[in-house]
Amino acid sequence: MIKVSILYPHSASARFDFDYYTQRHMPRSIKLLSAHPGFRAVSVERGLGGTEPGSAPTYTAACFYTFETIESFIAAFMPHAAELQADIANYTDIAAQIQFNEILIAAPAAV
Amino acid sequence: MIKVSILYPHSASARFDFDYYTQRHMPRSIKLLSAHPGFRAVSVERGLGGTEPGSAPTYTAACFYTFETIESFIAAFMPHAAELQADIANYTDIAAQIQFNEILIAAPAAV
Repeated sequence: MIKVSILYPHSASARFDFDYYTQRHMPRSIKLLSAHPGFRAVSVERGLGGTEPGSAPTYTAACFYTFETIESFIAAFMPHAAELQADIANYTDIAAQIQFNEILIAAPAAV
Repeated sequence: MIKVSILYPHSASARFDFDYYTQRHMPRSIKLLSAHPGFRAVSVERGLGGTEPGSAPTYTAACFYTFETIESFIAAFMPHAAELQADIANYTDIAAQIQFNEILIAAPAAV
């Protein structure tokens, strides 16, 4: 099982429209990607802060897609890459950090 | 629902013992923290790479704890903080980036 993490680094001067992200962009992305049989789960999150009281989070927002394999994620994403990537400017000017991860331990067990 | 993210930034010169982390540190951490009623889920991951073929991941490893609230996580963690933090040096010399996140969308629904 793998997880794709899409992290938006915090910047005091950056723009991030959570309404658009959670009501338009991510519902559309989830609708498209979850149609693939390799889809397992998705989580969309807002960074609240670091461990020091009042500190800014390292990431303003994050999205995590769990898929059966990297190949299945790519197969799910690529047909919709142009549409989804073109929509990013509608909610943020932050360049996301994207990486692939292997899930080593999950409890409850990764679905 | 909140998620605590513990991210270990990648560094070519850093040390990270995945055997110790997945067989000793995290099982102990999960045993202790999951005993709290606010515990919901945990995921432990290894960074495989970025989107460019052959590129290094931003994070070597990551751990995510889902809890009902920040307060319940703190209540679960604090009694064991000294033991768990003292164990970190046994698997890595990387300083983790820790932050609190609010889960905005989860599918399947956050447990």
